[in-house]
Amino acid sequence: MNFKTRLLASVIGMLVAAPAVAAPKNIIYMIGDGMGPTYTTAYRYFKDDPATKVVEPTVFDSILVGMAHTYPDDDTIVTDSAAGATALSTGTKSYNGAIAVDTHKAHLETMLEVAKKKGKTTALVATSQINHATPASFASHNESRRNYDEIANDYVDNKIAGKLPVDLMLGGGTKYFIREDRNLVNEFKEAGYQYVDDLSKLDTLNKVPAIGLFAEVGLPFAIDEEPQRLTKMTQTALSLLENQNDKGFFLMVEGSQIDWCGHANDIACAMREMDDFAESIKLAKAFVDSNPDTILVVTADHSTGGLTLGANGQYRWERDVIANVKGSAGEIAKALVDAKDVKATWKALTGLEYDSATELNVKEALSQGPKALSTVVKETISDASFTGWTTSGHTAIDVPVFAHGMGKERFIGSQNNTKIADKLIEFIKK
Amino acid sequence: MNFKTRLLASVIGMLVAAPAVAAPKNIIYMIGDGMGPTYTTAYRYFKDDPATKVVEPTVFDSILVGMAHTYPDDDTIVTDSAAGATALSTGTKSYNGAIAVDTHKAHLETMLEVAKKKGKTTALVATSQINHATPASFASHNESRRNYDEIANDYVDNKIAGKLPVDLMLGGGTKYFIREDRNLVNEFKEAGYQYVDDLSKLDTLNKVPAIGLFAEVGLPFAIDEEPQRLTKMTQTALSLLENQNDKGFFLMVEGSQIDWCGHANDIACAMREMDDFAESIKLAKAFVDSNPDTILVVTADHSTGGLTLGANGQYRWERDVIANVKGSAGEIAKALVDAKDVKATWKALTGLEYDSATELNVKEALSQGPKALSTVVKETISDASFTGWTTSGHTAIDVPVFAHGMGKERFIGSQNNTKIADKLIEFIKK
Ligand SMILES: [Zn+2]
Ligand SMILES: [Zn+2]
Repeated sequence: MNFKTRLLASVIGMLVAAPAVAAPKNIIYMIGDGMGPTYTTAYRYFKDDPATKVVEPTVFDSILVGMAHTYPDDDTIVTDSAAGATALSTGTKSYNGAIAVDTHKAHLETMLEVAKKKGKTTALVATSQINHATPASFASHNESRRNYDEIANDYVDNKIAGKLPVDLMLGGGTKYFIREDRNLVNEFKEAGYQYVDDLSKLDTLNKVPAIGLFAEVGLPFAIDEEPQRLTKMTQTALSLLENQNDKGFFLMVEGSQIDWCGHANDIACAMREMDDFAESIKLAKAFVDSNPDTILVVTADHSTGGLTLGANGQYRWERDVIANVKGSAGEIAKALVDAKDVKATWKALTGLEYDSATELNVKEALSQGPKALSTVVKETISDASFTGWTTSGHTAIDVPVFAHGMGKERFIGSQNNTKIADKLIEFIKK
Repeated sequence: MNFKTRLLASVIGMLVAAPAVAAPKNIIYMIGDGMGPTYTTAYRYFKDDPATKVVEPTVFDSILVGMAHTYPDDDTIVTDSAAGATALSTGTKSYNGAIAVDTHKAHLETMLEVAKKKGKTTALVATSQINHATPASFASHNESRRNYDEIANDYVDNKIAGKLPVDLMLGGGTKYFIREDRNLVNEFKEAGYQYVDDLSKLDTLNKVPAIGLFAEVGLPFAIDEEPQRLTKMTQTALSLLENQNDKGFFLMVEGSQIDWCGHANDIACAMREMDDFAESIKLAKAFVDSNPDTILVVTADHSTGGLTLGANGQYRWERDVIANVKGSAGEIAKALVDAKDVKATWKALTGLEYDSATELNVKEALSQGPKALSTVVKETISDASFTGWTTSGHTAIDVPVFAHGMGKERFIGSQNNTKIADKLIEFIKK
């Protein structure tokens, strides 16, 4: 080896070794619950500007790096949100329903707990109740996702080095946090947390620790009330977390209700949830660009509903039909029940014609109640837009993986969902 | 800048610039027709060894790098195979039905034509007729994929620098190549091509140019006859192409019938097609490993059938049900029509119980003929395995992109399908 060769080898060594040494200080982990690849594809066409020939790429398109395998630790292949979130938070697969416990119900250390031990600030943001399966799997341990009160208690009781596990929580859930048997909000306040319960007062939070609970259970759907509620909460979280701790932060943001619209087979609802999640990701991406010691990883726990773009033999998907819908099927159904002029209400809220077949379906459903009406609304929109669904539950398709910032190259390719957690935990431990 | 810094900068420059200068000599482009991400996901679970706790990764998992957008050049969002293949072969989107022509029906230069001009050996391998939409879009130009005779004629008439466009063709299609009005096989022979029409004599081909046509139209389904016919043709193609031309080769291999099983909503059929395609990819991957001046890119033109893993509210997918099926639904239906013992034939070929509900369905379908019976077979298998379908046509979900070998990093991320063609054409032009 001559000098030049030796120097070349040494430089190459430096370059190759570099990514293994540097680890991001801040971790932003965003989980689109139920956001399988059909959802990210659909969102591109939903957002397409019809005035331009090209279909504009989305924020998802700008940071896609791979896909992840979501099967749980049993023989079902199809995961639920608890097992999915446990894999994504701990690096260990478990049974459907498990909240950060393994198949023997032993506690699994979560990446939020590791971050807290390492002195980082920790934060959870969701549009569901903040003790719902996905956030719960980061800060609590329970044999069942359904034990909502016990999970909420853990947000105070699951002490990490003597401290409460989560420094910032934004989401829904007063029903579980302010109870007759225990008022956790008061306990948070006693521990020094700021508290707000009104989304319009989000700005009054000016430091961590803090907790904001903006609904009894989950927040209203984006399509029905505040279309950018996750974006606003993400903005507040990033502002509160930026530059307040030398050791950095761990933030998990969940687009919780993509999944809920998927379970309902409500495509208009799902696309508005995707929009709120996408806008939140844009903020996180911009944060990474101005704070390069940050990694952003975005993925999903599973896909929901068996959504397909194109159905019933037709080679088309009508994004305009979906863009014209003004509410979730449930809210449109309620409005139809209360309507003096059913036809005008139908046309205003669905954007669809009230033809004779529709009139027949709506009148029959009106006599059966809001649930039947909601089904008519959803099915008419799905049929008109050629949107397909195969289930009210989840499916096993691989989910997309997105990464941006320091260390993003570690997430390129096809990977088990547990490996995403392993890599992030490796970063946090450094 | 001191010496060390300057040398470092220069070495980094070399390293960064290197990929832009080096281009692979050989191009292997593999297209799974209809192979959306549900198919590659399903294949992993289909192939899972139940004796091990882990779900073994597939060849797809080892080379995934990104995803591609498949929309055609009209407002339908959902592409057909012709527009899909035209985008993948020329880098220009067109209308559904177009074979390497644009929306004004002007000819678009294909990457195979560029390769031929550059002096590379060119080859097409498919399990469909070799003049079907996907291979056709590489070597011919037509306003409609349905003009099969005209497309076959192009394989002789579409001269590139005075020469026939394709040096090696393996697939089906005697119906179109040996016609009363024109015998193209004789024309190939006169031009010096070896010819075989029997898959068992594939080995007798010992040089290019050559053509092998092994069926009147498409080859039989993998599940029904020769499960590894694409693998065998790929093996032969790679042997004939290796080291016979200093300028390298362009080879397109299509797993044509994944799409056909998808259109039929026949999951057992689709998984066996995936297996033949996956084994072919393994051969190509090994070829790249021993010929590092080669790039392998694998993708799909679109997804088919609206396939989902999990259906009807159930959180499970039963791969064992699918593994036990012994034929395509069409062949099982024929066997049931001819069967002396319908119950025994049903159990032997579907692997499912012949319970009273099944018996009722089968008996009713028997009176209606093979098509109705085929539907009963497929629906029973889909129901028992919790496999969902939403269409007999295509869907618009993004498709996975795989790459291995020299230049593979160019394909990382989310990209328009035309960009895959652009990058490969850039390689070929170098
Ligand atoms: Zn979920
Ligand atoms: Zn196709």
